[in-house]
Amino acid sequence: MKMSLGPGTILLPTPTLVVGTYDDAGRPNVMTAAWGGICCSVPPCVSVSLRKATYTYGNLLAQQAFTISIPSRIFVREVDYFGIVSGRDVDKFAATDLTPVHSDVVNAPYVGEFPLVVECSLIHQLEIGLHTLFVGEVMDVKVEAECRDSRGNPDPEKIQACIYAPGVTTYYAFGENLGRGFEIGREAYGRG
Amino acid sequence: MKMSLGPGTILLPTPTLVVGTYDDAGRPNVMTAAWGGICCSVPPCVSVSLRKATYTYGNLLAQQAFTISIPSRIFVREVDYFGIVSGRDVDKFAATDLTPVHSDVVNAPYVGEFPLVVECSLIHQLEIGLHTLFVGEVMDVKVEAECRDSRGNPDPEKIQACIYAPGVTTYYAFGENLGRGFEIGREAYGRG
Repeated sequence: MKMSLGPGTILLPTPTLVVGTYDDAGRPNVMTAAWGGICCSVPPCVSVSLRKATYTYGNLLAQQAFTISIPSRIFVREVDYFGIVSGRDVDKFAATDLTPVHSDVVNAPYVGEFPLVVECSLIHQLEIGLHTLFVGEVMDVKVEAECRDSRGNPDPEKIQACIYAPGVTTYYAFGENLGRGFEIGREAYGRG
Repeated sequence: MKMSLGPGTILLPTPTLVVGTYDDAGRPNVMTAAWGGICCSVPPCVSVSLRKATYTYGNLLAQQAFTISIPSRIFVREVDYFGIVSGRDVDKFAATDLTPVHSDVVNAPYVGEFPLVVECSLIHQLEIGLHTLFVGEVMDVKVEAECRDSRGNPDPEKIQACIYAPGVTTYYAFGENLGRGFEIGREAYGRG
């Protein structure tokens, strides 16, 4: 039987998007956001929603650019920390001994130690309420060479990304492979 | 060393959002979308991006409402099938023997067998390119009674949601618990 929980921000999975921006002084900052994802295939775009109160909000608007670094699970503590403190108060790269790398395609830094990076130019913003949704056009995707599969695609089993579950406010790892998209449904049910 | 892959739609994880709508004749339809997520906390909102070519696109605009049903991993074949065929051609509920349930808060159906449901009223749309981003205000969240934790929150370890990985076009399960948000970062690094 289904129980009503009322309106709320519950969805599974949500990602751990580590959003990289420069501030007005050119200092690199990162914050973790779980409200976001891919939002268009052509042009390739991702969205991330931010509160105006965050340091990243002003940075992103001023620079019109951001990166998303996807962490391996070994960095889950750093990911959580990046969502707790503000770049106004703390140099999060220095505090965690991680390395800001300047993107070669947009004016934003990414986390050198994280295996997957998406570099974006801001193309839309949508005021929703507490959060503003920002749409970035993906200018490049970068992946660690050893985290690719035999076809060159970013391999989730090597990247070992983090998952966030709101409600229970808990991080999870990727689990087992459940099968290939556009294959297992066809095998089970045909084309219709 | 990081390798450049060029612009593309790569992010980990992405969700398997099963979007429920009625067509003009009141027939229930579902399609699977991986481009979406939570996008605002107040009011609680989720976004899903759709191509104009999909049957769901017109349904959602006409009804100004949709649901998102989150499947358990045991339904991964149905989820994949829902993303392969069109509701113009197939009654996907009948084909998979799943049950359309009429939402009591919006004019849209959800999948009765899936453990977590988010019911939404359309409040924004943003034309991006091939995809249009739709923002729905969450009017209710429903969860199977036995899929809650001791505090009543939807429990990922009971829901067993699916994860989608673009690039490799593969589904994954949730893996192990990596720790609590707003705790493990503070324990490791303090408040800054």
